Amino acid sequence: MSVRKQLAVDWGTSSLRGALLDPQGRVLEERTFARGILTVPPGGFPAVFETCFGDWTKAEDILCLIAGMAGSQQGWMQAPYCPCPAGFDEIASQLTWIQPGRIAIVPGLRCENNGMPDVMRGEEIQVFGALQLLAIQDALLVLPGTHSKWVNVQAGAIRNFSTFMTGEFYALLRQHSILARTLPESDGAIDQDAFDQGVALALGGGSLLQTAFSVRTLSLFDRMSSTGLPSYLSGLVIGEEIRAQQLAAGTSVILIGSDALTQRYERALAQRAVTVQRVGAEANWRGLWALAQTIHPA
Amino acid sequence: MSVRKQLAVDWGTSSLRGALLDPQGRVLEERTFARGILTVPPGGFPAVFETCFGDWTKAEDILCLIAGMAGSQQGWMQAPYCPCPAGFDEIASQLTWIQPGRIAIVPGLRCENNGMPDVMRGEEIQVFGALQLLAIQDALLVLPGTHSKWVNVQAGAIRNFSTFMTGEFYALLRQHSILARTLPESDGAIDQDAFDQGVALALGGGSLLQTAFSVRTLSLFDRMSSTGLPSYLSGLVIGEEIRAQQLAAGTSVILIGSDALTQRYERALAQRAVTVQRVGAEANWRGLWALAQTIHPA
Repeated sequence: MSVRKQLAVDWGTSSLRGALLDPQGRVLEERTFARGILTVPPGGFPAVFETCFGDWTKAEDILCLIAGMAGSQQGWMQAPYCPCPAGFDEIASQLTWIQPGRIAIVPGLRCENNGMPDVMRGEEIQVFGALQLLAIQDALLVLPGTHSKWVNVQAGAIRNFSTFMTGEFYALLRQHSILARTLPESDGAIDQDAFDQGVALALGGGSLLQTAFSVRTLSLFDRMSSTGLPSYLSGLVIGEEIRAQQLAAGTSVILIGSDALTQRYERALAQRAVTVQRVGAEANWRGLWALAQTIHPA
Repeated sequence: MSVRKQLAVDWGTSSLRGALLDPQGRVLEERTFARGILTVPPGGFPAVFETCFGDWTKAEDILCLIAGMAGSQQGWMQAPYCPCPAGFDEIASQLTWIQPGRIAIVPGLRCENNGMPDVMRGEEIQVFGALQLLAIQDALLVLPGTHSKWVNVQAGAIRNFSTFMTGEFYALLRQHSILARTLPESDGAIDQDAFDQGVALALGGGSLLQTAFSVRTLSLFDRMSSTGLPSYLSGLVIGEEIRAQQLAAGTSVILIGSDALTQRYERALAQRAVTVQRVGAEANWRGLWALAQTIHPA
Protein backbone atom coordinates (compact mmCIF):
# COMPACT_ATOMS: atom_id res chain seq x y z
CA MET A 1 0.00 0.00 0.00
CA SER A 2 1.18 3.48 -0.84
CA VAL A 3 2.55 5.55 1.99
CA ARG A 4 2.09 8.79 0.06
CA LYS A 5 -0.56 11.40 0.57
CA GLN A 6 -2.96 11.69 -2.31
CA LEU A 7 -4.89 14.49 -3.93
CA ALA A 8 -8.07 12.99 -5.38
CA VAL A 9 -9.81 15.24 -7.92
CA ASP A 10 -13.18 14.98 -9.63
CA TRP A 11 -13.21 17.59 -12.39
CA GLY A 12 -16.63 17.60 -13.95
CA THR A 13 -18.56 19.69 -16.42
CA SER A 14 -19.91 22.15 -13.91
CA SER A 15 -17.83 21.72 -10.76
CA LEU A 16 -14.35 20.90 -9.52
CA ARG A 17 -13.91 18.92 -6.33
CA GLY A 18 -10.77 17.80 -4.62
CA ALA A 19 -9.89 15.89 -1.44
CA LEU A 20 -6.61 15.50 0.37
CA LEU A 21 -6.34 11.89 1.53
CA ASP A 22 -3.97 10.40 4.04
CA PRO A 23 -2.06 7.21 3.12
CA GLN A 24 -4.94 5.13 4.49
CA GLY A 25 -7.48 6.90 2.29
CA ARG A 26 -9.07 9.00 5.02
CA VAL A 27 -10.25 12.44 3.90
CA LEU A 28 -8.15 15.14 5.57
CA GLU A 29 -9.78 18.07 3.79
CA GLU A 30 -12.22 18.65 0.95
CA ARG A 31 -12.70 21.58 -1.43
CA THR A 32 -15.36 22.34 -4.04
CA PHE A 33 -15.15 25.06 -6.69
CA ALA A 34 -17.58 26.25 -9.36
CA ARG A 35 -14.79 25.72 -11.89
CA GLY A 36 -16.17 22.94 -14.06
CA ILE A 37 -14.36 22.41 -17.35
CA LEU A 38 -16.87 24.60 -19.17
CA THR A 39 -15.62 27.62 -17.18
CA VAL A 40 -11.96 27.04 -18.08
CA PRO A 41 -10.57 28.66 -21.24
CA PRO A 42 -8.35 26.55 -23.52
CA GLY A 43 -4.91 26.28 -21.94
CA GLY A 44 -6.22 27.54 -18.62
CA PHE A 45 -6.31 24.22 -16.76
CA PRO A 46 -2.85 24.31 -15.12
CA ALA A 47 -3.52 27.77 -13.69
CA VAL A 48 -6.94 26.82 -12.30
CA PHE A 49 -5.48 23.65 -10.82
CA GLU A 50 -2.65 25.62 -9.19
CA THR A 51 -5.05 28.20 -7.78
CA CYS A 52 -7.35 25.61 -6.29
CA PHE A 53 -4.87 23.00 -5.06
CA GLY A 54 -1.38 24.53 -5.36
CA ASP A 55 -0.78 24.49 -1.61
CA TRP A 56 -1.56 20.76 -1.46
CA THR A 57 0.60 19.81 -4.44
CA LYS A 58 3.74 21.43 -3.00
CA ALA A 59 4.45 18.26 -1.05
CA GLU A 60 7.27 16.33 -2.70
CA ASP A 61 5.64 12.93 -2.67
CA ILE A 62 2.01 13.79 -3.44
CA LEU A 63 0.15 11.71 -6.00
CA CYS A 64 -2.74 13.38 -7.79
CA LEU A 65 -5.33 11.41 -9.80
CA ILE A 66 -7.94 13.41 -11.70
CA ALA A 67 -11.16 11.76 -12.83
CA GLY A 68 -14.06 13.13 -14.85
CA MET A 69 -14.47 15.47 -17.80
CA ALA A 70 -10.95 16.90 -17.37
CA GLY A 71 -9.94 14.04 -19.66
CA SER A 72 -12.41 14.93 -22.41
CA GLN A 73 -11.84 16.78 -25.68
CA GLN A 74 -12.82 20.00 -23.94
CA GLY A 75 -10.75 19.23 -20.84
CA TRP A 76 -7.17 19.58 -19.66
CA MET A 77 -5.67 16.78 -21.72
CA GLN A 78 -7.51 14.10 -23.64
CA ALA A 79 -7.40 10.71 -21.92
CA PRO A 80 -8.68 8.14 -24.42
CA TYR A 81 -11.62 5.98 -23.34
CA CYS A 82 -10.70 2.54 -22.05
CA PRO A 83 -12.86 -0.20 -23.66
CA CYS A 84 -15.05 -2.49 -21.53
CA PRO A 85 -14.71 -4.90 -19.90
CA ALA A 86 -12.41 -2.89 -17.68
CA GLY A 87 -11.24 -3.28 -14.12
CA PHE A 88 -8.72 -1.41 -12.02
CA ASP A 89 -5.78 -2.86 -13.91
CA GLU A 90 -7.03 -1.69 -17.30
CA ILE A 91 -7.69 1.80 -16.01
CA ALA A 92 -4.42 2.03 -14.09
CA SER A 93 -2.46 1.03 -17.19
CA GLN A 94 -4.04 3.76 -19.30
CA LEU A 95 -3.52 6.86 -17.19
CA THR A 96 -2.57 10.02 -19.05
CA TRP A 97 0.30 11.55 -17.09
CA ILE A 98 0.54 15.32 -16.88
CA GLN A 99 3.56 15.17 -14.56
CA PRO A 100 4.99 11.65 -14.66
CA GLY A 101 4.57 9.92 -11.34
CA ARG A 102 2.79 12.92 -9.78
CA ILE A 103 -0.32 14.07 -11.68
CA ALA A 104 -2.42 11.90 -13.97
CA ILE A 105 -5.81 11.94 -15.64
CA VAL A 106 -7.89 8.79 -15.32
CA PRO A 107 -9.39 7.49 -18.60
CA GLY A 108 -13.12 7.20 -19.06
CA LEU A 109 -14.77 4.01 -20.28
CA ARG A 110 -16.58 3.08 -23.47
CA CYS A 111 -18.75 0.16 -24.46
CA GLU A 112 -21.27 -0.85 -27.16
CA ASN A 113 -25.01 -1.41 -26.70
CA ASN A 114 -27.05 -2.61 -29.68
CA GLY A 115 -24.38 -1.29 -32.01
CA MET A 116 -24.32 2.14 -30.37
CA PRO A 117 -21.32 3.42 -28.43
CA ASP A 118 -21.73 4.59 -24.85
CA VAL A 119 -19.27 6.47 -22.66
CA MET A 120 -18.64 7.58 -19.10
CA ARG A 121 -16.04 9.74 -17.40
CA GLY A 122 -15.81 9.77 -13.63
CA GLU A 123 -18.66 7.42 -12.75
CA GLU A 124 -16.36 4.41 -13.16
CA ILE A 125 -14.34 5.67 -10.20
CA GLN A 126 -17.46 5.86 -8.03
CA VAL A 127 -18.37 2.34 -9.10
CA PHE A 128 -14.99 0.95 -8.08
CA GLY A 129 -15.16 2.92 -4.84
CA ALA A 130 -18.56 1.46 -4.01
CA LEU A 131 -17.32 -2.07 -4.73
CA GLN A 132 -14.43 -1.44 -2.33
CA LEU A 133 -16.65 -0.01 0.37
CA LEU A 134 -19.07 -2.93 0.11
CA ALA A 135 -16.32 -5.52 -0.47
CA ILE A 136 -18.10 -7.08 -3.44
CA GLN A 137 -17.10 -8.06 -6.99
CA ASP A 138 -20.45 -8.43 -8.80
CA ALA A 139 -23.27 -5.93 -8.89
CA LEU A 140 -25.69 -3.82 -10.87
CA LEU A 141 -25.01 -0.21 -9.93
CA VAL A 142 -27.06 2.88 -10.71
CA LEU A 143 -25.66 6.41 -10.62
CA PRO A 144 -28.60 8.80 -10.97
CA GLY A 145 -27.97 12.26 -12.30
CA THR A 146 -28.01 14.54 -15.32
CA HIS A 147 -26.90 11.51 -17.31
CA SER A 148 -27.74 8.46 -15.20
CA LYS A 149 -25.56 5.39 -15.60
CA TRP A 150 -26.57 1.74 -15.15
CA VAL A 151 -23.41 -0.27 -14.70
CA ASN A 152 -23.00 -4.02 -14.84
CA VAL A 153 -20.01 -5.33 -12.87
CA GLN A 154 -18.81 -8.93 -12.92
CA ALA A 155 -15.73 -10.27 -11.18
CA GLY A 156 -14.63 -6.76 -10.32
CA ALA A 157 -14.70 -5.48 -13.90
CA ILE A 158 -17.24 -3.21 -15.59
CA ARG A 159 -18.68 -5.40 -18.39
CA ASN A 160 -20.98 -2.78 -19.87
CA PHE A 161 -23.15 0.19 -18.94
CA SER A 162 -25.84 2.42 -20.37
CA THR A 163 -26.59 6.11 -20.12
CA PHE A 164 -30.01 7.72 -19.61
CA MET A 165 -30.37 11.49 -19.98
CA THR A 166 -32.91 11.53 -17.17
CA GLY A 167 -31.80 14.55 -15.18
CA GLU A 168 -31.27 16.55 -18.34
CA PHE A 169 -34.74 15.69 -19.68
CA TYR A 170 -36.23 16.76 -16.36
CA ALA A 171 -34.43 20.09 -16.56
CA LEU A 172 -35.41 20.61 -20.22
CA LEU A 173 -39.08 19.93 -19.51
CA ARG A 174 -38.97 21.90 -16.25
CA GLN A 175 -37.35 25.00 -17.72
CA HIS A 176 -37.90 25.15 -21.47
CA SER A 177 -41.05 23.21 -22.41
CA ILE A 178 -44.70 24.20 -22.44
CA LEU A 179 -44.92 22.44 -19.05
CA ALA A 180 -42.80 25.20 -17.52
CA ARG A 181 -45.88 27.45 -17.70
CA THR A 182 -47.87 24.96 -15.65
CA LEU A 183 -45.22 24.22 -13.02
CA PRO A 184 -44.59 26.46 -9.99
CA GLU A 185 -41.44 28.60 -9.90
CA SER A 186 -39.67 26.41 -7.37
CA ASP A 187 -39.70 22.63 -6.97
CA GLY A 188 -40.28 22.79 -3.21
CA ALA A 189 -40.25 19.65 -1.03
CA ILE A 190 -41.01 16.34 -2.70
CA ASP A 191 -44.68 15.31 -2.77
CA GLN A 192 -44.40 11.55 -2.31
CA ASP A 193 -47.88 10.71 -3.58
CA ALA A 194 -47.45 12.77 -6.73
CA PHE A 195 -44.01 11.24 -7.30
CA ASP A 196 -45.40 7.71 -6.89
CA GLN A 197 -48.22 8.47 -9.30
CA GLY A 198 -45.73 9.63 -11.93
CA VAL A 199 -43.59 6.52 -11.47
CA ALA A 200 -46.63 4.26 -11.74
CA LEU A 201 -47.79 5.84 -14.99
CA ALA A 202 -44.32 5.61 -16.50
CA LEU A 203 -43.86 1.98 -15.46
CA GLY A 204 -47.18 1.15 -17.11
CA GLY A 205 -45.53 1.42 -20.52
CA GLY A 206 -45.69 3.88 -23.35
CA SER A 207 -43.28 6.75 -23.66
CA LEU A 208 -42.30 9.93 -21.88
CA LEU A 209 -43.37 11.72 -25.09
CA GLN A 210 -46.92 10.90 -24.03
CA THR A 211 -46.82 10.75 -20.25
CA ALA A 212 -45.16 14.17 -19.95
CA PHE A 213 -48.25 15.77 -21.50
CA SER A 214 -50.29 14.65 -18.49
CA VAL A 215 -48.46 17.27 -16.39
CA ARG A 216 -50.36 19.80 -18.45
CA THR A 217 -53.72 18.07 -18.54
CA LEU A 218 -53.83 17.13 -14.86
CA SER A 219 -53.25 20.79 -14.09
CA LEU A 220 -55.78 21.93 -16.70
CA PHE A 221 -58.55 19.95 -15.01
CA ASP A 222 -57.35 20.69 -11.46
CA ARG A 223 -56.68 17.03 -10.83
CA MET A 224 -53.30 17.66 -9.24
CA SER A 225 -52.15 20.56 -7.10
CA SER A 226 -49.57 22.84 -8.63
CA THR A 227 -47.13 22.06 -5.80
CA GLY A 228 -47.31 18.34 -6.61
CA LEU A 229 -46.54 18.70 -10.31
CA PRO A 230 -42.71 18.92 -10.10
CA SER A 231 -42.62 15.71 -8.04
CA TYR A 232 -45.02 14.09 -10.49
CA LEU A 233 -42.78 15.04 -13.43
CA SER A 234 -39.76 13.74 -11.52
CA GLY A 235 -41.61 10.45 -11.04
CA LEU A 236 -42.40 10.32 -14.77
CA VAL A 237 -38.78 10.68 -15.90
CA ILE A 238 -37.28 8.42 -13.21
CA GLY A 239 -40.04 5.88 -13.83
CA GLU A 240 -39.30 6.00 -17.56
CA GLU A 241 -35.63 5.28 -16.88
CA ILE A 242 -36.58 2.29 -14.74
CA ARG A 243 -39.21 1.04 -17.21
CA ALA A 244 -36.49 0.74 -19.85
CA GLN A 245 -34.45 -1.70 -17.71
CA GLN A 246 -34.77 -5.45 -17.78
CA LEU A 247 -35.16 -6.09 -14.06
CA ALA A 248 -36.47 -9.31 -12.59
CA ALA A 249 -38.43 -8.92 -9.37
CA GLY A 250 -36.08 -9.52 -6.47
CA THR A 251 -33.17 -7.88 -8.25
CA SER A 252 -30.93 -5.81 -6.00
CA VAL A 253 -29.08 -2.70 -7.16
CA ILE A 254 -26.54 -0.37 -5.62
CA LEU A 255 -27.43 3.29 -5.83
CA ILE A 256 -24.60 5.81 -5.74
CA GLY A 257 -25.24 9.49 -5.23
CA SER A 258 -26.77 12.16 -3.03
CA ASP A 259 -29.37 11.15 -0.48
CA ALA A 260 -32.05 13.28 -2.09
CA LEU A 261 -31.70 11.57 -5.46
CA THR A 262 -31.00 8.00 -4.38
CA GLN A 263 -34.00 8.11 -2.04
CA ARG A 264 -36.21 8.91 -5.05
CA TYR A 265 -34.74 6.02 -7.00
CA GLU A 266 -35.15 3.67 -4.08
CA ARG A 267 -38.79 4.64 -3.83
CA ALA A 268 -39.35 4.23 -7.57
CA LEU A 269 -37.53 0.91 -7.76
CA ALA A 270 -39.67 -0.43 -4.93
CA GLN A 271 -42.62 -0.28 -7.35
CA ARG A 272 -40.78 -2.95 -9.35
CA ALA A 273 -39.90 -4.94 -6.24
CA VAL A 274 -36.22 -4.08 -6.63
CA THR A 275 -34.26 -3.66 -3.41
CA VAL A 276 -31.35 -1.25 -3.09
CA GLN A 277 -28.23 -0.45 -1.13
CA ARG A 278 -27.26 3.22 -1.10
CA VAL A 279 -23.72 4.57 -1.19
CA GLY A 280 -22.90 8.26 -0.90
CA ALA A 281 -20.26 10.62 -2.28
CA GLU A 282 -17.54 8.83 -0.29
CA ALA A 283 -17.47 6.30 -3.16
CA ASN A 284 -15.58 8.78 -5.32
CA TRP A 285 -12.64 9.39 -2.95
CA ARG A 286 -12.52 5.72 -2.07
CA GLY A 287 -12.32 4.80 -5.76
CA LEU A 288 -9.47 7.18 -6.49
CA TRP A 289 -7.64 6.06 -3.38
CA ALA A 290 -8.01 2.41 -4.36
CA LEU A 291 -6.78 3.19 -7.86
CA ALA A 292 -3.71 4.87 -6.38
CA GLN A 293 -2.93 1.64 -4.50
CA THR A 294 -2.92 -0.21 -7.82
CA ILE A 295 -0.42 2.24 -9.26
CA HIS A 296 1.84 2.26 -6.25
CA PRO A 297 1.62 -1.10 -4.59
CA ALA A 298 3.33 -1.46 -1.26
CA MET B 1 -76.50 23.40 -47.41
CA SER B 2 -75.67 26.92 -46.37
CA VAL B 3 -75.67 29.56 -49.06
CA ARG B 4 -73.62 31.93 -46.95
CA LYS B 5 -69.98 32.77 -47.34
CA GLN B 6 -67.82 31.57 -44.50
CA LEU B 7 -64.73 32.83 -42.75
CA ALA B 8 -62.84 29.80 -41.46
CA VAL B 9 -60.22 30.63 -38.83
CA ASP B 10 -57.51 28.54 -37.20
CA TRP B 11 -56.15 30.57 -34.29
CA GLY B 12 -53.25 28.67 -32.80
CA THR B 13 -50.56 29.28 -30.24
CA SER B 14 -48.07 30.82 -32.62
CA SER B 15 -50.02 31.75 -35.74
CA LEU B 16 -53.40 32.98 -36.96
CA ARG B 17 -54.75 31.72 -40.27
CA GLY B 18 -58.01 32.51 -41.99
CA ALA B 19 -59.71 31.54 -45.23
CA LEU B 20 -62.68 33.05 -47.01
CA LEU B 21 -64.79 30.20 -48.36
CA ASP B 22 -67.55 30.36 -50.91
CA PRO B 23 -70.86 28.60 -50.15
CA GLN B 24 -69.50 25.41 -51.71
CA GLY B 25 -66.43 25.46 -49.46
CA ARG B 26 -63.95 26.56 -52.09
CA VAL B 27 -61.14 28.77 -50.78
CA LEU B 28 -61.47 32.28 -52.23
CA GLU B 29 -58.58 33.78 -50.32
CA GLU B 30 -56.23 32.83 -47.51
CA ARG B 31 -54.33 34.91 -44.96
CA THR B 32 -51.71 34.00 -42.37
CA PHE B 33 -50.49 36.24 -39.56
CA ALA B 34 -47.84 35.82 -36.87
CA ARG B 35 -50.53 36.69 -34.33
CA GLY B 36 -50.86 33.47 -32.37
CA ILE B 37 -52.71 33.76 -29.08
CA LEU B 38 -49.46 34.17 -27.17
CA THR B 39 -48.92 37.51 -28.94
CA VAL B 40 -52.33 38.89 -28.00
CA PRO B 41 -52.72 40.80 -24.71
CA PRO B 42 -55.75 40.03 -22.53
CA GLY B 43 -58.80 41.70 -24.05
CA GLY B 44 -56.98 42.29 -27.32
CA PHE B 45 -58.62 39.55 -29.37
CA PRO B 46 -61.50 41.54 -30.94
CA ALA B 47 -59.08 44.21 -32.16
CA VAL B 48 -56.65 41.70 -33.68
CA PHE B 49 -59.53 39.86 -35.33
CA GLU B 50 -60.89 43.13 -36.75
CA THR B 51 -57.47 44.15 -38.05
CA CYS B 52 -56.86 40.84 -39.75
CA PHE B 53 -60.32 40.00 -41.08
CA GLY B 54 -62.50 43.11 -40.63
CA ASP B 55 -62.97 43.63 -44.36
CA TRP B 56 -64.25 40.07 -44.76
CA THR B 57 -66.63 40.21 -41.81
CA LYS B 58 -68.44 43.33 -43.07
CA ALA B 59 -70.67 41.14 -45.21
CA GLU B 60 -74.12 40.90 -43.63
CA ASP B 61 -74.52 37.15 -43.92
CA ILE B 62 -70.99 35.90 -43.15
CA LEU B 63 -70.51 32.99 -40.75
CA CYS B 64 -67.21 32.77 -38.92
CA LEU B 65 -66.07 29.63 -37.10
CA ILE B 66 -62.82 29.82 -35.14
CA ALA B 67 -60.96 26.66 -34.16
CA GLY B 68 -57.80 26.19 -32.13
CA MET B 69 -56.28 27.76 -29.05
CA ALA B 70 -58.50 30.85 -29.32
CA GLY B 71 -60.90 28.80 -27.19
CA SER B 72 -58.38 28.09 -24.45
CA GLN B 73 -57.94 29.77 -21.07
CA GLN B 74 -55.37 32.11 -22.62
CA GLY B 75 -57.50 32.74 -25.71
CA TRP B 76 -60.35 34.99 -26.80
CA MET B 77 -63.12 33.26 -24.90
CA GLN B 78 -63.01 29.91 -23.18
CA ALA B 79 -64.86 27.20 -25.12
CA PRO B 80 -65.16 24.19 -22.80
CA TYR B 81 -63.78 20.88 -24.06
CA CYS B 82 -66.33 18.52 -25.54
CA PRO B 83 -65.96 14.97 -24.14
CA CYS B 84 -65.27 12.01 -26.44
CA PRO B 85 -66.81 10.23 -28.21
CA ALA B 86 -67.65 13.30 -30.25
CA GLY B 87 -68.81 13.79 -33.82
CA PHE B 88 -69.94 16.83 -35.74
CA ASP B 89 -73.24 17.02 -33.89
CA GLU B 90 -71.61 17.15 -30.46
CA ILE B 91 -69.20 19.86 -31.54
CA ALA B 92 -71.83 21.89 -33.37
CA SER B 93 -74.07 21.88 -30.32
CA GLN B 94 -71.32 23.23 -28.07
CA LEU B 95 -70.10 26.26 -29.97
CA THR B 96 -69.28 29.33 -27.92
CA TRP B 97 -70.90 32.26 -29.72
CA ILE B 98 -69.12 35.60 -29.69
CA GLN B 99 -71.72 37.19 -31.94
CA PRO B 100 -74.79 34.96 -32.02
CA GLY B 101 -75.30 33.48 -35.47
CA ARG B 102 -72.19 35.16 -36.86
CA ILE B 103 -68.96 34.39 -34.96
CA ALA B 104 -68.35 31.30 -32.86
CA ILE B 105 -65.45 29.45 -31.26
CA VAL B 106 -65.34 25.71 -31.80
CA PRO B 107 -64.79 23.62 -28.65
CA GLY B 108 -61.76 21.39 -28.28
CA LEU B 109 -62.06 17.74 -27.28
CA ARG B 110 -61.07 15.81 -24.18
CA CYS B 111 -60.78 12.12 -23.43
CA GLU B 112 -59.22 9.79 -20.84
CA ASN B 113 -56.33 7.36 -21.40
CA ASN B 114 -55.30 5.09 -18.52
CA GLY B 115 -56.91 7.48 -16.08
CA MET B 116 -55.12 10.52 -17.51
CA PRO B 117 -56.95 13.30 -19.31
CA ASP B 118 -55.92 14.29 -22.80
CA VAL B 119 -56.98 17.32 -24.84
CA MET B 120 -56.87 18.80 -28.32
CA ARG B 121 -57.91 22.11 -29.83
CA GLY B 122 -58.04 22.49 -33.58
CA GLU B 123 -56.84 19.05 -34.65
CA GLU B 124 -60.40 17.68 -34.38
CA ILE B 125 -61.39 19.98 -37.23
CA GLN B 126 -58.61 18.65 -39.44
CA VAL B 127 -59.70 15.11 -38.59
CA PHE B 128 -63.29 15.78 -39.64
CA GLY B 129 -62.06 17.56 -42.75
CA ALA B 130 -59.93 14.58 -43.74
CA LEU B 131 -62.85 12.20 -43.19
CA GLN B 132 -64.95 14.41 -45.49
CA LEU B 133 -62.26 14.61 -48.15
CA LEU B 134 -61.74 10.86 -48.12
CA ALA B 135 -65.45 10.07 -47.65
CA ILE B 136 -64.81 7.62 -44.81
CA GLN B 137 -66.23 7.10 -41.31
CA ASP B 138 -63.63 4.92 -39.60
CA ALA B 139 -59.89 5.55 -39.40
CA LEU B 140 -56.76 5.93 -37.33
CA LEU B 141 -55.41 9.40 -38.04
CA VAL B 142 -52.05 10.89 -37.11
CA LEU B 143 -51.39 14.63 -36.97
CA PRO B 144 -47.64 15.07 -36.51
CA GLY B 145 -46.34 18.26 -34.96
CA THR B 146 -45.17 19.98 -31.81
CA HIS B 147 -47.76 17.88 -30.00
CA SER B 148 -48.60 14.99 -32.31
CA LYS B 149 -52.10 13.51 -32.05
CA TRP B 150 -53.14 9.92 -32.74
CA VAL B 151 -56.89 9.90 -33.26
CA ASN B 152 -59.21 6.92 -33.35
CA VAL B 153 -62.42 7.52 -35.35
CA GLN B 154 -65.34 5.11 -35.49
CA ALA B 155 -68.64 5.69 -37.25
CA GLY B 156 -67.71 9.30 -37.88
CA ALA B 157 -67.02 10.13 -34.22
CA ILE B 158 -63.69 10.61 -32.44
CA ARG B 159 -63.66 7.83 -29.83
CA ASN B 160 -60.36 8.75 -28.22
CA PHE B 161 -56.94 10.18 -28.99
CA SER B 162 -53.50 10.55 -27.48
CA THR B 163 -50.90 13.30 -27.52
CA PHE B 164 -47.15 12.88 -28.00
CA MET B 165 -44.85 15.86 -27.40
CA THR B 166 -42.62 14.74 -30.24
CA GLY B 167 -41.94 18.01 -32.02
CA GLU B 168 -41.39 19.78 -28.74
CA PHE B 169 -38.91 17.13 -27.51
CA TYR B 170 -37.03 17.46 -30.79
CA ALA B 171 -36.79 21.23 -30.34
CA LEU B 172 -35.75 20.92 -26.68
CA LEU B 173 -32.98 18.46 -27.50
CA ARG B 174 -31.99 20.39 -30.62
CA GLN B 175 -31.75 23.77 -28.94
CA HIS B 176 -31.27 23.38 -25.21
CA SER B 177 -29.65 20.02 -24.44
CA ILE B 178 -26.02 18.93 -24.41
CA LEU B 179 -26.70 17.53 -27.91
CA ALA B 180 -27.01 21.08 -29.23
CA ARG B 181 -23.22 21.35 -28.97
CA THR B 182 -22.80 18.32 -31.21
CA LEU B 183 -25.41 19.25 -33.82
CA PRO B 184 -24.69 21.66 -36.70
CA GLU B 185 -26.23 25.15 -36.60
CA SER B 186 -28.86 24.39 -39.23
CA ASP B 187 -30.82 21.20 -39.86
CA GLY B 188 -30.19 21.24 -43.61
CA ALA B 189 -31.83 18.74 -45.96
CA ILE B 190 -32.95 15.43 -44.53
CA ASP B 191 -30.39 12.61 -44.60
CA GLN B 192 -32.61 9.60 -45.27
CA ASP B 193 -30.12 6.98 -44.13
CA ALA B 194 -29.44 8.75 -40.86
CA PHE B 195 -33.19 9.24 -40.31
CA ASP B 196 -33.87 5.54 -40.97
CA GLN B 197 -31.10 4.55 -38.57
CA GLY B 198 -32.65 6.68 -35.82
CA VAL B 199 -36.10 5.21 -36.44
CA ALA B 200 -34.73 1.66 -36.36
CA LEU B 201 -32.95 2.19 -33.03
CA ALA B 202 -36.06 3.74 -31.48
CA LEU B 203 -38.35 0.97 -32.73
CA GLY B 204 -35.98 -1.57 -31.20
CA GLY B 205 -37.31 -0.68 -27.74
CA GLY B 206 -35.93 1.13 -24.77
CA SER B 207 -36.45 4.81 -24.24
CA LEU B 208 -35.58 8.14 -25.80
CA LEU B 209 -33.78 8.90 -22.51
CA GLN B 210 -31.18 6.39 -23.68
CA THR B 211 -31.28 6.55 -27.47
CA ALA B 212 -30.86 10.34 -27.52
CA PHE B 213 -27.43 9.97 -25.94
CA SER B 214 -26.24 8.13 -29.04
CA VAL B 215 -26.37 11.43 -30.95
CA ARG B 216 -23.46 12.45 -28.77
CA THR B 217 -21.52 9.21 -28.84
CA LEU B 218 -21.86 8.58 -32.59
CA SER B 219 -20.42 12.03 -33.11
CA LEU B 220 -17.72 11.51 -30.49
CA PHE B 221 -16.37 8.47 -32.34
CA ASP B 222 -16.94 9.95 -35.82
CA ARG B 223 -19.43 7.24 -36.66
CA MET B 224 -21.96 9.65 -38.16
CA SER B 225 -21.34 12.84 -40.09
CA SER B 226 -22.36 16.04 -38.37
CA THR B 227 -24.80 16.86 -41.19
CA GLY B 228 -26.62 13.55 -40.62
CA LEU B 229 -27.15 14.04 -36.89
CA PRO B 230 -30.28 16.26 -37.02
CA SER B 231 -32.01 13.72 -39.27
CA TYR B 232 -30.87 10.92 -36.96
CA LEU B 233 -32.32 12.74 -33.94
CA SER B 234 -35.55 13.35 -35.87
CA GLY B 235 -35.71 9.61 -36.58
CA LEU B 236 -35.16 8.84 -32.89
CA VAL B 237 -38.07 10.99 -31.68
CA ILE B 238 -40.49 10.04 -34.46
CA GLY B 239 -39.49 6.39 -34.06
CA GLU B 240 -40.13 6.64 -30.32
CA GLU B 241 -43.62 8.02 -30.97
CA ILE B 242 -44.35 5.11 -33.30
CA ARG B 243 -42.82 2.51 -30.97
CA ALA B 244 -45.34 3.54 -28.30
CA GLN B 245 -48.32 2.69 -30.55
CA GLN B 246 -50.02 -0.67 -30.71
CA LEU B 247 -49.98 -1.20 -34.46
CA ALA B 248 -50.55 -4.50 -36.15
CA ALA B 249 -48.64 -5.03 -39.37
CA GLY B 250 -50.89 -4.11 -42.27
CA THR B 251 -52.52 -1.28 -40.33
CA SER B 252 -53.28 1.79 -42.40
CA VAL B 253 -53.22 5.33 -41.02
CA ILE B 254 -54.15 8.72 -42.38
CA LEU B 255 -51.45 11.34 -41.95
CA ILE B 256 -52.53 14.98 -41.85
CA GLY B 257 -50.02 17.79 -42.13
CA SER B 258 -47.30 19.37 -44.19
CA ASP B 259 -45.57 17.32 -46.86
CA ALA B 260 -42.20 17.60 -45.16
CA LEU B 261 -43.45 16.14 -41.89
CA THR B 262 -45.90 13.55 -43.18
CA GLN B 263 -43.26 12.20 -45.56
CA ARG B 264 -41.01 11.52 -42.56
CA TYR B 265 -43.81 9.73 -40.75
CA GLU B 266 -44.67 7.70 -43.83
CA ARG B 267 -41.06 6.60 -44.08
CA ALA B 268 -40.85 5.75 -40.38
CA LEU B 269 -44.17 3.88 -40.36
CA ALA B 270 -43.00 1.79 -43.31
CA GLN B 271 -40.47 0.22 -40.93
CA ARG B 272 -43.47 -1.20 -39.06
CA ALA B 273 -45.22 -2.23 -42.29
CA VAL B 274 -47.89 0.42 -41.78
CA THR B 275 -49.29 2.01 -44.93
CA VAL B 276 -50.48 5.59 -45.05
CA GLN B 277 -52.68 8.06 -46.89
CA ARG B 278 -51.55 11.67 -46.68
CA VAL B 279 -53.85 14.69 -46.44
CA GLY B 280 -52.61 18.27 -46.49
CA ALA B 281 -53.64 21.57 -44.93
CA GLU B 282 -56.87 21.61 -46.95
CA ALA B 283 -58.31 19.32 -44.26
CA ASN B 284 -58.63 22.28 -41.93
CA TRP B 285 -60.80 24.49 -44.19
CA ARG B 286 -62.80 21.48 -45.29
CA GLY B 287 -63.51 20.58 -41.67
CA LEU B 288 -64.71 24.07 -40.73
CA TRP B 289 -66.83 24.28 -43.87
CA ALA B 290 -68.42 20.91 -43.13
CA LEU B 291 -69.10 22.00 -39.57
CA ALA B 292 -70.83 25.12 -40.88
CA GLN B 293 -73.15 22.93 -42.93
CA THR B 294 -74.20 21.15 -39.75
CA ILE B 295 -75.04 24.45 -38.09
CA HIS B 296 -76.95 25.85 -41.04
CA PRO B 297 -78.53 22.99 -42.86
CA ALA B 298 -80.23 23.78 -46.14
